[in-house]
Amino acid sequence: MRLRNIKNADELVRKHPLVIDENIFESNIYIEIGCGKGNFIIAMSQKYPNINFIGIEKYPSVLIRALQKLDTIPDNLRFMCLDALNLESVFNSNVEAIYLNFSDPWPKKRQVKRRLTSDTFLKIYENISVSNVELFIKTDNKNLFAYSLESLNNHGYYFKKVSLDLQMSDLNNIMTEYEEKFTTLNIAINYLHATKRVNK
Amino acid sequence: MRLRNIKNADELVRKHPLVIDENIFESNIYIEIGCGKGNFIIAMSQKYPNINFIGIEKYPSVLIRALQKLDTIPDNLRFMCLDALNLESVFNSNVEAIYLNFSDPWPKKRQVKRRLTSDTFLKIYENISVSNVELFIKTDNKNLFAYSLESLNNHGYYFKKVSLDLQMSDLNNIMTEYEEKFTTLNIAINYLHATKRVNK
Repeated sequence: MRLRNIKNADELVRKHPLVIDENIFESNIYIEIGCGKGNFIIAMSQKYPNINFIGIEKYPSVLIRALQKLDTIPDNLRFMCLDALNLESVFNSNVEAIYLNFSDPWPKKRQVKRRLTSDTFLKIYENISVSNVELFIKTDNKNLFAYSLESLNNHGYYFKKVSLDLQMSDLNNIMTEYEEKFTTLNIAINYLHATKRVNK
Repeated sequence: MRLRNIKNADELVRKHPLVIDENIFESNIYIEIGCGKGNFIIAMSQKYPNINFIGIEKYPSVLIRALQKLDTIPDNLRFMCLDALNLESVFNSNVEAIYLNFSDPWPKKRQVKRRLTSDTFLKIYENISVSNVELFIKTDNKNLFAYSLESLNNHGYYFKKVSLDLQMSDLNNIMTEYEEKFTTLNIAINYLHATKRVNK
């Protein structure tokens, strides 16, 4: 996500009624890590009114774009301005689904730990989620996708669906900002729906 | 593989000294299922003289092209003219590695069972292989690759390496006939190296 710095973004975001510091939902909690300008999670919250969505975004200057898209305060949607490394401080084993859409690929070897599907983050997800948490990944980045397939397989995730060309598949899909751009440019989107394998 | 029918191919293949009906090797056995015109397995047998390679090919008219490439009878290379459904009749839990290169994608739903990574074939591989068999897949076909990732993950294979662009990776690679063509055309090759997960 390219950042255009917005004056007072930090303060504006912190005061915004859609932005929370603590999790206010008790159940049916789906989160998007790196929600960017919010297209995806806003559309999801409208499509699934019985599910509680929280969009997590690190950068206030980005999150503010999501907030500006909403005139009302939907019951089932909130945002947090938070680094994903701090997720354990706000969630307590009750997240049911995690969306990772077009995450930063951190391509260099020394950056591996920063990838949102690295060991570091998979352990965090384990601590904030129900035992059979569902993980949904979309990315145009082939190296990040290949890495994520390895990492999730190695951590015992069960693959429910894999696609190397989401647009050509028959999967029901809500597009993010990036995805709309890539689709116009005819760039294939990779998709993974995995769940934490339950020991048999 | 497009078939050009060759007169007497069946007889020529059956009489050829490189072609065997039964497994003649005791250990270090690596097989390629659908070896086509043989480029890959011939190069592998030359590169790794201490490993015994068997190329399996269903169609005599294709296999004969592989046989024509060899003037001598290498100690560590043989071929079988065999339908992969009959692998259990010739191998007995001693195959150590299986190569699937550019297998037929069988794209239609009613053809799923024919894919070389379907339940049907994974069970056959289990019966002919050592418990920690290594599986190597290369394909340009995105749907077959996505299907194979799901299928192998669901069957407890452990992913050692995934690549969605083999040519751009730093993996040591011997090319098949198809692969040379795809590389010239700039079509990305998908690659998976998996091993049967050993229960911990």
